[in-house]
Amino acid sequence: MEFFDIAETWSREAITAAQIVRLRNTVEQAMKSPFYGQRLKEAGVTPGSIRSLDDVRRIPLTSKDDLRAQYPDGLICVPKSELVRMHASSGTTGTPTVVYHTQSDLNSWADLMARCMHMVGIRREDVFQNMAGYGLFTGGLGIHYGAERLGCLTIPAGAGNTRRQVKLVRDFRTTVAHIIPSYALYLGAALRDEGEDPAELPLRIALIGAEPHTEEARRRIEDMLGLKAYNSYGLSEMNGPGVAFECVHQDGLHVWEDAYIAEIIDPATGEAVPDGEVGELVMTTLCRQGMPVLRYRTRDLTRFLPGECACGRVHRRLDRILGRADDMLIVKGVNIYPMQVEQVLMGFPEVGQNYLIVLERDDFRDVLRVKVEIRDEYFEEDMRKLHGLRERITRRIHDEILVTPKVDLVQHNSLPKSEGKAQRVQDLRERPAL
Amino acid sequence: MEFFDIAETWSREAITAAQIVRLRNTVEQAMKSPFYGQRLKEAGVTPGSIRSLDDVRRIPLTSKDDLRAQYPDGLICVPKSELVRMHASSGTTGTPTVVYHTQSDLNSWADLMARCMHMVGIRREDVFQNMAGYGLFTGGLGIHYGAERLGCLTIPAGAGNTRRQVKLVRDFRTTVAHIIPSYALYLGAALRDEGEDPAELPLRIALIGAEPHTEEARRRIEDMLGLKAYNSYGLSEMNGPGVAFECVHQDGLHVWEDAYIAEIIDPATGEAVPDGEVGELVMTTLCRQGMPVLRYRTRDLTRFLPGECACGRVHRRLDRILGRADDMLIVKGVNIYPMQVEQVLMGFPEVGQNYLIVLERDDFRDVLRVKVEIRDEYFEEDMRKLHGLRERITRRIHDEILVTPKVDLVQHNSLPKSEGKAQRVQDLRERPAL
Ligand SMILES: [Zn+2]
Ligand SMILES: [Zn+2]
Repeated sequence: MEFFDIAETWSREAITAAQIVRLRNTVEQAMKSPFYGQRLKEAGVTPGSIRSLDDVRRIPLTSKDDLRAQYPDGLICVPKSELVRMHASSGTTGTPTVVYHTQSDLNSWADLMARCMHMVGIRREDVFQNMAGYGLFTGGLGIHYGAERLGCLTIPAGAGNTRRQVKLVRDFRTTVAHIIPSYALYLGAALRDEGEDPAELPLRIALIGAEPHTEEARRRIEDMLGLKAYNSYGLSEMNGPGVAFECVHQDGLHVWEDAYIAEIIDPATGEAVPDGEVGELVMTTLCRQGMPVLRYRTRDLTRFLPGECACGRVHRRLDRILGRADDMLIVKGVNIYPMQVEQVLMGFPEVGQNYLIVLERDDFRDVLRVKVEIRDEYFEEDMRKLHGLRERITRRIHDEILVTPKVDLVQHNSLPKSEGKAQRVQDLRERPAL
Repeated sequence: MEFFDIAETWSREAITAAQIVRLRNTVEQAMKSPFYGQRLKEAGVTPGSIRSLDDVRRIPLTSKDDLRAQYPDGLICVPKSELVRMHASSGTTGTPTVVYHTQSDLNSWADLMARCMHMVGIRREDVFQNMAGYGLFTGGLGIHYGAERLGCLTIPAGAGNTRRQVKLVRDFRTTVAHIIPSYALYLGAALRDEGEDPAELPLRIALIGAEPHTEEARRRIEDMLGLKAYNSYGLSEMNGPGVAFECVHQDGLHVWEDAYIAEIIDPATGEAVPDGEVGELVMTTLCRQGMPVLRYRTRDLTRFLPGECACGRVHRRLDRILGRADDMLIVKGVNIYPMQVEQVLMGFPEVGQNYLIVLERDDFRDVLRVKVEIRDEYFEEDMRKLHGLRERITRRIHDEILVTPKVDLVQHNSLPKSEGKAQRVQDLRERPAL
């Protein structure tokens, strides 16, 4: 097998050894900012006190609000004249989170991104069309620099203008596209509407990310456009794209552990969850000079997939993002994520598009009720079959979340219709008086 | 004085010597494309046959239509796997012109752009905000790479969103902006409308280009925003920005003659015009591997400014772009550009916004009539003063274009109003029967 970077061939021991050294360097670098200088001092963390990887847990967590409070430049760790790039997330509130890069940071970022692309078989002979917007959004310039580093002929098409995108793909024989999943589906549908077969485009690979999407959406993109679509994970606080990426086995996203420490914590307690359980992803940069970030709470829910990947890389694999930490529910003292329930439901062909999770309180016990719309053709079946279906759904949900739900099968169109973002959860429990 | 590149200190002899060597190499490289292979063979031009700089005139001119006819890849001179970037001009017709770059081409381009920025005093301590759109348009990525090469903290803001642009400038103490002239005026006016003084922004330098604009517009931008605005000239066929740029003396744009050969030709005959006369700019790349372009007709009208620049650089200076070659008029056998007449008129405070050039034929002689609206306060003056004004205008136009016009002074609002692009020329001459 071909690798882009020697770090792809490292053993677990080599990764751990590198992580410890780099974490020490990162702590030393981070201390140069007023924010981390103070934080680490309070926590009693010095570079020398990092002796094993477990010592990362002695470092306090960093939240998005911490970054916002340091706006615009409280986290810079180098003389300002050494900074060459700034990116900012627009965010939903007024204050953006800002990330600064030195030239060496940009080089590492481009290397990581090029490694991701190389991993799925992209080579310098490929023609790469970037259909993501450029600017402060890290997805555009981030993948652009990776493609150029890999030596692909890069077409900086930017977002939108479907007619032109298709003309560029055809005229320049584009083989690889960076495209947002919903736009991939739109583009395919637009071509079909004109009586054309989108699978006849020369595209062979799509890099998809920046937007949560299901496995089903990925398969539809692959079938419609006749290509392999690979999931990308990144966030601007950790550079942007290039943090974790699927290999050709499409079975989880390898997170580049030579450049990041990834942890999964319980969003309620901040403690590590047992290996393989779902929780909030926490990330630490290991190679960034301009603005290192320690134990950043991504708010993204995922888990480490168990076992070794068939590709041979030991960099651990993250499951696709299962939701946002803010969506977490605590039921009978157990953390539950609506996306887990949804994933189970979508595995049943009898289940329609709509469902609702209702939390109730029966005396002092939590009850998790799941109302599920059943497709008409199944709803007509005899009661015994429906009973069997309900039992199977109940069991599968219990296996996933370790709480036994009450499942109600309801008729198509009987649950409240969602306009825009679906409301999937109703919490009817009384809050305990404080 | 500080220079970014040793080539800025070269003498005329050193520039000429480098141009001859690089022209030979460029001819050798260009011959690898089918188009130039054929063209140069027909013209009997080989690398060895280039002995002096005058030999450049033995190379056939390349037009925009030539580039379009080679769409999409008839001008590539390296194995395709060596290409890393493609840019395309949208153009007004269906077929874009496409330019390809190798990594070494991108490096040279970034160096040239960084040299331009360094020349006007921009340093790595500066914060640079790119207010131009990214994507296939060369202005965005072109200047972005130059700023990063120079080591400025680069904020890839992209175009539009005035409120956010202003917030970024304020919060990150942006000192240098790349901004389209009309948008600079818009942004200043928008701030004034909110009762703020745009001159209080931390901006100290604006790079303006991509759009023809007058000296008056530049001065307004400078006064309004309280900064120095420097003119940039470039076109995608010659990379994009970084071709010619003003130095701090703001007296013409130094064209980087170590990287380009610039000629001024008569657009009607294709022959060189006498030194200092207005004509069409023709450019040859000297450092490009992926897609060299020989003697490209830019359709832009300008002239070489005479004399040495106070900055000491001997790279010749182009006048600001005076119009498009397609606007050229031939009157009494002399080439005339409406912009030349406009420049003279704008030098008279008595002259209003509107004027019209009318070409007539009197027997067999061409007559150039210039109708000029006079501001009301001057129109009321006595006839003798108006006669004097007319004579002065007539003389100044003659000095500029070497043809004596008939000048009519008319009242404000008496010429046809222009909606959108002004119609400045009426040709009432009968075409000779062929
Ligand atoms: Zn793998
Ligand atoms: Zn100068």
